[in-house]
Amino acid sequence: MITLAVDAMGGDSGLPVTVPGALAFLKQQQDVHLIMVGDESAVRQALSAANAPMERITVLHASEVVGMDEAPQLALKNKKDSSMRIAINQVKEGNAQAAVSAGNTGALMATARFVLKTIPGIDRPAIAKFLPSDSEHLTLALDLGANVDCSPEQLVQFAIIGNELFQALYPQKGSPRVGLLNVGTEDIKGTDTVKQTFKLLKSSKLNFIGNIESNGVLYGEADVIVADGFVGNIMLKTIEGAVKFMSGAIRQEFQRNLFNKMAAVAALPALKGLKSKLDPRKFNGAILLGLRGIVIKSHGGTDDVGFSYALEEAYHEAKSASLSKIEQGVAAQLAALEAIKGQEEAASDTAE
Amino acid sequence: MITLAVDAMGGDSGLPVTVPGALAFLKQQQDVHLIMVGDESAVRQALSAANAPMERITVLHASEVVGMDEAPQLALKNKKDSSMRIAINQVKEGNAQAAVSAGNTGALMATARFVLKTIPGIDRPAIAKFLPSDSEHLTLALDLGANVDCSPEQLVQFAIIGNELFQALYPQKGSPRVGLLNVGTEDIKGTDTVKQTFKLLKSSKLNFIGNIESNGVLYGEADVIVADGFVGNIMLKTIEGAVKFMSGAIRQEFQRNLFNKMAAVAALPALKGLKSKLDPRKFNGAILLGLRGIVIKSHGGTDDVGFSYALEEAYHEAKSASLSKIEQGVAAQLAALEAIKGQEEAASDTAE
Repeated sequence: MITLAVDAMGGDSGLPVTVPGALAFLKQQQDVHLIMVGDESAVRQALSAANAPMERITVLHASEVVGMDEAPQLALKNKKDSSMRIAINQVKEGNAQAAVSAGNTGALMATARFVLKTIPGIDRPAIAKFLPSDSEHLTLALDLGANVDCSPEQLVQFAIIGNELFQALYPQKGSPRVGLLNVGTEDIKGTDTVKQTFKLLKSSKLNFIGNIESNGVLYGEADVIVADGFVGNIMLKTIEGAVKFMSGAIRQEFQRNLFNKMAAVAALPALKGLKSKLDPRKFNGAILLGLRGIVIKSHGGTDDVGFSYALEEAYHEAKSASLSKIEQGVAAQLAALEAIKGQEEAASDTAE
Repeated sequence: MITLAVDAMGGDSGLPVTVPGALAFLKQQQDVHLIMVGDESAVRQALSAANAPMERITVLHASEVVGMDEAPQLALKNKKDSSMRIAINQVKEGNAQAAVSAGNTGALMATARFVLKTIPGIDRPAIAKFLPSDSEHLTLALDLGANVDCSPEQLVQFAIIGNELFQALYPQKGSPRVGLLNVGTEDIKGTDTVKQTFKLLKSSKLNFIGNIESNGVLYGEADVIVADGFVGNIMLKTIEGAVKFMSGAIRQEFQRNLFNKMAAVAALPALKGLKSKLDPRKFNGAILLGLRGIVIKSHGGTDDVGFSYALEEAYHEAKSASLSKIEQGVAAQLAALEAIKGQEEAASDTAE
């Protein structure tokens, strides 16, 4: 049985999205219980109006809500009874295996980091997400915006936690292929930081397959793709923008003239299939990765369908990714890296 | 009358692409003469086989060709009689108003920089390109890969040369709206370098409209978008990859079953219209910007149609963008920036 803590008040809309999203999700998954955190009477009212299966839901009161534009550090300091904070507390206290919030990303990251702490050896958590893809491939990309300036060591840490999570979620795929997002495939490409990262990854025990160019990220060239939060965010939002742009172009083309409009009727099943395949809601649910607990960030402006996908992501992770196993994996990878560094230093001392 | 120097041997294919591309371009534009540079007998043979209008073409012999994988510095040092180098020399010597090559980007950049030098005040040239867009908007983005590590001052220089070129090409659009590619629209977003750049751009005389997120770059939110070469390259290749991915998804969807296949027949004009609209060949032709002369880089793997678009880009620029005017504009923008810096320093000295 999996229990998820839901920040019922988070996001642009709050309850009108989180409650129907939660109920849709409960219909999909039977072995799950939800803790809905928020203003108790408002939450109960919304659940009751939607005929929620109350035997599968606990309501937990929180007197505050973090605003979508609130400064993360102020939210952390001043809103100790926020729905976001209480939801994360449930993971800390072992009452839930994961927390889900559509609230303010910065505040969620700051709060989750403060409450849960990072996995030993990981300096800072990253935002990770599965990229849109055809069904054959699933690529986890990180960091997508949490850390804009990263050291090579931090980028390697992202590679390691991404690797451990991917392996936990998809053990049948074998050792995840880890790629470094870069401007070319050759070893010598990139900024100084990226070149250093390349060297570190090459000497690690990860299944490092080298540099990945951004025109290949949607084709499953790697299972885990590592970038700093600036570059990762630019890549993710470029994909979002390009998909939206193309969808608009398709719509326009099928409305250009009467003939095309008629063709659009015949093409409706194909166009609907395409729309469904590329529905960004299906890829909703970013993972705050590197924490001692599972926290999933839903897009703040998503609807109930999108929110239910974020819950699915949390459920999938809570079911497959054991924290202690991930921590062991991270420790082993970091130890291997240190050992190699030690050997190299010893070798270079001898050479001198 | 415009004269363009063409590296006839450059690119993955060389003459089989450059010759038909050049002839298609000559049909489009009447007031143009081409200097085709390469192995003279091979070039003449290809032109003759294609019934080229020889009264509009000069053939210039070059005994060497720069390989697509050749190290830029070696090409620069050892291939002084390459078709690429001789084509650029034509611009330097005033025989041509622009040079076009589909050859090795690094070698082209190194050679162009060595032969032509940069515009006074510009440290390093950048690669600039107009992004795909709906017809209403034209956005020039730079740097797209020439300089992976950039200082704030260099980024501002890119903004200035991009601004001057855009203004020269589209004077009717008024003062170009200059945007900074960033992970959020708020002033405080980004890496330290990007934040510094934001401040400098804000104090400049440019029409700086602030940060632009990458999901907006295809919607004409800015006329000129500035990024370092790493981030710009990631953005550009992500767009290319996403457009290709979507095109593949459309094709797949229309072949899913018999009904969809039949619908595809009716939808053919719309699908063709879409294909034509998003045809990457139409956006072929990257500008090596910041040099004392016009050099256009065609995609190495493009076909004759794509190559003719690179020639169009060179023609458009040669016709509209006077180097002396651009140099004056750059000097004025840099002087204004220096003056403001001086004032700020004086003010901070007084404050101390």
